[in-house]
Amino acid sequence: MATKTALFIVAEGSEELELVAPVDILRRANVTVTIADLADSEYVKTKSNLLIKTDAKLKDVKNNKFDAVVIPGGPSHKVLSSADVVGQILLEHEKCGKVIAAICAAPFVLFKHGIAKGKSLTSYPTVKSDIEGFYQYKEDSTVVDGNLVTSRGPATAVEFGLALVEVLLGNEEKVKVAKGILYPL
Amino acid sequence: MATKTALFIVAEGSEELELVAPVDILRRANVTVTIADLADSEYVKTKSNLLIKTDAKLKDVKNNKFDAVVIPGGPSHKVLSSADVVGQILLEHEKCGKVIAAICAAPFVLFKHGIAKGKSLTSYPTVKSDIEGFYQYKEDSTVVDGNLVTSRGPATAVEFGLALVEVLLGNEEKVKVAKGILYPL
Repeated sequence: MATKTALFIVAEGSEELELVAPVDILRRANVTVTIADLADSEYVKTKSNLLIKTDAKLKDVKNNKFDAVVIPGGPSHKVLSSADVVGQILLEHEKCGKVIAAICAAPFVLFKHGIAKGKSLTSYPTVKSDIEGFYQYKEDSTVVDGNLVTSRGPATAVEFGLALVEVLLGNEEKVKVAKGILYPL
Repeated sequence: MATKTALFIVAEGSEELELVAPVDILRRANVTVTIADLADSEYVKTKSNLLIKTDAKLKDVKNNKFDAVVIPGGPSHKVLSSADVVGQILLEHEKCGKVIAAICAAPFVLFKHGIAKGKSLTSYPTVKSDIEGFYQYKEDSTVVDGNLVTSRGPATAVEFGLALVEVLLGNEEKVKVAKGILYPL
């Protein structure tokens, strides 16, 4: 079986825990993760001023197809919401039935690009009022609706990562990774 | 009140979630965090192959005093266990009554450097047998014994970070940060 792949789209201000937890968890499940910054930077500067190396320039991978496209939250949600290339990547992956995932403020990015309207999702509370009318808004910590995976904030980033493993690789792999990181299921 | 300070000592193979979660959480509490790599590298390569920029060379800060010294887990615990400079930093901080913290396999680093013997602690299960005879070993997800803070693994890294905020700044600040990241208390 070919390795599953995931693209993380980040920008200056992305929330580091919401980036690093799912990346760590997906790599434990042998998913090939590509972190790409909207500005095509070699490093992304996160919300709390970490510099984390990216794996590729977004312009070089924007036409590739991944099994999942993941968007961490943080103040970066504003620039990601107005970037055409982000909308194109999301729409193309939605069209092909790929997994689309967003956490914290990042479901606002999905909303602005017209992704997954009508589906069940959740988000950080501050963006709820902007998006709730267009989705079946839930207060659960992580919501999976088919190929759409959303979660609420930094404290749910581990659960979010494990939900991605389950959607991509099944429950058995999720249980294996959860056990390794001592996450109670 | 002067800002509280924390030194994170890392090395190649440090577990990224156990580094990033407490750094994120401490910076949300306005703690001045310094990440320093044992090899004095500009970037630390973590367990799952992230490159994260360090804030200082360990050789440049090894004689400084911090309010807390924190050691993330991961395969890096082996090299950190045998590095004299790590032992010197830990012993000096223990002598001054500063906070010492370790997560996952990193309590083994404390053990090898003779730190906090007899106190209550926890660790990742695989290092339990090496250290349990020298401590009051607990199975709790995070254990605070005076100025010693230990935790069990990646899935407890957020709780570990919040425990550090409480020990350094009190319960009110912990509650504030927990609320911001949507951590249920």
